[in-house]
Amino acid sequence: MEIQPPLVLKRQLLVPNKTLMGPGPSNCSQRVLDAMANPVLGHLHPECLQIMDEIKEGIKYAFQTKNDATMCVSGSGHGAMEAALCNLLEEGDIALFGVTGFWGHRAADMAKRYGADVRFLESRFGHALTMEEVEFAMEGHKPQVLFICQGDSSTGIVQSNIGEIGKLCEKYNCLLVVDTVASLGGTEFFMDEWKVDVAYTGSQKVLCAPPGISPISFSKKAMSRIISRSSKVKSYYWDATLIGQYWNCFGGSRIYHHTIASTLLYGLRESLALFAGMGLKSVIRRHKECSFRLQKGIEDMGLELLVPVQDDRLATVTAVKIPKGVDWRKVSEYAMKKYFFEISGGLGPTADHVFRIGLMGENATAEKVDLMLTILREAILNTSNITLNEKSKI
Amino acid sequence: MEIQPPLVLKRQLLVPNKTLMGPGPSNCSQRVLDAMANPVLGHLHPECLQIMDEIKEGIKYAFQTKNDATMCVSGSGHGAMEAALCNLLEEGDIALFGVTGFWGHRAADMAKRYGADVRFLESRFGHALTMEEVEFAMEGHKPQVLFICQGDSSTGIVQSNIGEIGKLCEKYNCLLVVDTVASLGGTEFFMDEWKVDVAYTGSQKVLCAPPGISPISFSKKAMSRIISRSSKVKSYYWDATLIGQYWNCFGGSRIYHHTIASTLLYGLRESLALFAGMGLKSVIRRHKECSFRLQKGIEDMGLELLVPVQDDRLATVTAVKIPKGVDWRKVSEYAMKKYFFEISGGLGPTADHVFRIGLMGENATAEKVDLMLTILREAILNTSNITLNEKSKI
Repeated sequence: MEIQPPLVLKRQLLVPNKTLMGPGPSNCSQRVLDAMANPVLGHLHPECLQIMDEIKEGIKYAFQTKNDATMCVSGSGHGAMEAALCNLLEEGDIALFGVTGFWGHRAADMAKRYGADVRFLESRFGHALTMEEVEFAMEGHKPQVLFICQGDSSTGIVQSNIGEIGKLCEKYNCLLVVDTVASLGGTEFFMDEWKVDVAYTGSQKVLCAPPGISPISFSKKAMSRIISRSSKVKSYYWDATLIGQYWNCFGGSRIYHHTIASTLLYGLRESLALFAGMGLKSVIRRHKECSFRLQKGIEDMGLELLVPVQDDRLATVTAVKIPKGVDWRKVSEYAMKKYFFEISGGLGPTADHVFRIGLMGENATAEKVDLMLTILREAILNTSNITLNEKSKI
Repeated sequence: MEIQPPLVLKRQLLVPNKTLMGPGPSNCSQRVLDAMANPVLGHLHPECLQIMDEIKEGIKYAFQTKNDATMCVSGSGHGAMEAALCNLLEEGDIALFGVTGFWGHRAADMAKRYGADVRFLESRFGHALTMEEVEFAMEGHKPQVLFICQGDSSTGIVQSNIGEIGKLCEKYNCLLVVDTVASLGGTEFFMDEWKVDVAYTGSQKVLCAPPGISPISFSKKAMSRIISRSSKVKSYYWDATLIGQYWNCFGGSRIYHHTIASTLLYGLRESLALFAGMGLKSVIRRHKECSFRLQKGIEDMGLELLVPVQDDRLATVTAVKIPKGVDWRKVSEYAMKKYFFEISGGLGPTADHVFRIGLMGENATAEKVDLMLTILREAILNTSNITLNEKSKI
C-alpha cells in the first residue's frame, strides 16, 4: 500500500458560523440544519418518496404552477440550468440568450456544448431588457428557445417583464426558459400565468435550504417538445423524462434513476415548509422592503448603486460600485475576519467593480440590512483612506 | 395567487432510523450525521476549500492514487459515471463495456447518448469476465475506452483481474474506466499500480457518507486525452478540467464552477476521516470476513448464492436466489415493518430473482451478519409455506 492515510483527516472538523450576505448561499435556519442530521433513507423507501411528494407541492407553490413535471435535479443551480437547456435543445436548434450580466453567457456556453445554434440579446449595461429589444431579437432570430435570467446575481438586475415575454414567446412558438435561481421569493414569479415553459431555482438562496438540490418545472408544452425529440437527451443524469418518472410526475410506477441525496431532501423540505408557512406574498414584500432600505442606506452613505433605474433593481442581490481608492478584497476580509460577515465582490462582468450584497431569506430583515450598512461603512473606512460623502449618519 | 400553500408541509418531518443492509445507501455514523448539521459555508470560503483539500487526500488514499486530478462531482454515483464517460468520449469513439450485470448497460446507455460507438463484452451469467474474454474483445473491437464495473451490485460479482486488464489496456492504448461505486473498501483497489485511468465511487456505500457527492480520479493519461479533445466536453457540469480547477487539482487559482453542497462535504470529510482512521487494509479484511460469514450462513440455511464461484463474489453485495414459493416483496416488507431492517430485491437482470444483501461500512460486522441471517430466515418462514433445507441451526 503506497499511499498512507492522510494526517490532515486527524484534525477535527471546524465549521464557523458566518452571516452569509453575499449572493448566496444564504444562511439556513436551525430547523433546516437539524433536519439534515436525520438518518439517510433509501431512495425508494416510502418515507423518502413522501418527502419528495411534499417537496413537489412546495415547489409548485413557490413557482405558482400546476405543472405535473415539477421535480428537483440532484445538483446545484448550474445543474438545473444544464438540465433545462439540454432537455429542450437538439443539435442545430436556435437558442436566444438574454444577457443582463454573467448568467446569460454561462447558459449559452452550456447550450453551445450541446450543439445549439447560440444567439445573444444583450441589454444596455446596467439595465434590464426592454420589450422592444426582446421583440426585435425574436423577430430577427426566430429561436426555438429563449433564455431569460429573471434576476442576474452578477449585476443585481431584475427582469420584470417576464409575463409580456411569455406572451411574445407564444406568438413566436418559442419555448421560454427562465432562470429564477437568485430571484425566486424576492420578486413575483407566476410560472403558469406568465406562460413560462421551464423554470428552475437555487435551493440556497431565498429558500434557505442547503445547496446541492435544485427545483425545476417543465410546462406541458416543454414536456411534449422533450418527448418528441428526434434524439435522446444527451445526458442521462439530466433527462427530465427519467427524473420525472422517479419523482412520480407522470403517474405509472417510480423507477430508480439515481440515488438521491436524502439529507438534502430533508433540508429542502423543511425550508419549503417554512417558506410556505410565511407565505409567498409576505416573503416577497419583506425582500422588497429590505432592498429599498438597503438602497437608501447605500446612497445615504455616499456610495453608488450599479443599476440606475429603480425598477431594474433585484431585491435579493444589490450591486454597489466600489469607490475609487477602495480595495474590495480588503473590505471583504475585514468584515469576515472581525465579524464573520460576508461582503462579496463582483462576478464576470462586474468582477472588481462592485460589492454584491445579498438579502435572502433569513437575512432579509431590517436588522440585517442595518448591520450590513454599519459593517460595510466601517470596513471601507478602516481599509482605505477615502472619506465618504454621507448624506446622513447611519 | 392561484396556488395555495400546501397543507402537507404543515406535517412534522419524520425520518425513521433503519438498518440499511441493501445494496446502498448504507448507514452513516452519528459523527457523519452530526457533521451535516453544521452551518452552510460559501463555496469559495477558505474553510470550505480546506475541507475539499482534506477530502482530496482522503480520496487519494481510498483509491491508492497520486493523481492530481482527484476530485468530487456534485451528484450521485450516476453523475460520476456520466462524468467519467463524457469527459473521455467524443462522437464516434469506440467504447467497450464489460457487462457482469446491470451497470455495464447503464454506462453504455450514457456513452451512446454522448455519441460513442458502443460495444459490449458480456460475461457468462453469474461469472466475472475472464482475461481470455477481455483480450478477445479488445483485439476485436480495439476500443478507445474500456469500462469495467469492479463490483456489480445487481449480481454481486467482483472483477478481481483489474490489474491484468490495466496491463492489457496499456498494450492496446485504451483508457480504462473502473466503476468502484459498490466495491471500494470492500475489496482491494490500487488505481495507480493497476494503471486505471478513471475511477469513481459512491459516497453512500462502504464510505458511509451521505449520497449526493461522488469521488472521482483521472490519471495523467486521461487528463491529457481530455485536454486534447477536438470538441468541448458536452456537459459543462461534468467537465473535469473545470471541476478540477475548482478543486485546485492543477495549480493556478480556483475558479467558481458551481455552488458545492457544503453539508455533503462535511459528511464525506468525516466519513473519510473514519475510513482512514480504521485503515484500508483492515476495512477490506473486515468486509471479506463478514461476507464469508454471510455466504456460509446463507448456504447453511439451505439457500443458494447467485454467484457460484467463490472468487467472483463481491464482499459488499451478496445476491441470494429467491427460493420457489417465496415472494421477495413480502419478505422485504416483513423485515422492514417488524425490524426497520432492509432486505432488497434484485435490479435489472436480477429483478425478482434474488435478494440483495449489503455489508457496507458500519453494517459489515459479524453481529449485523447474524442479525441479517436471523431476520431473513424468520421473514421467509413467516411469509411463505416453504421449509428450509437447513444444514445447521443458526
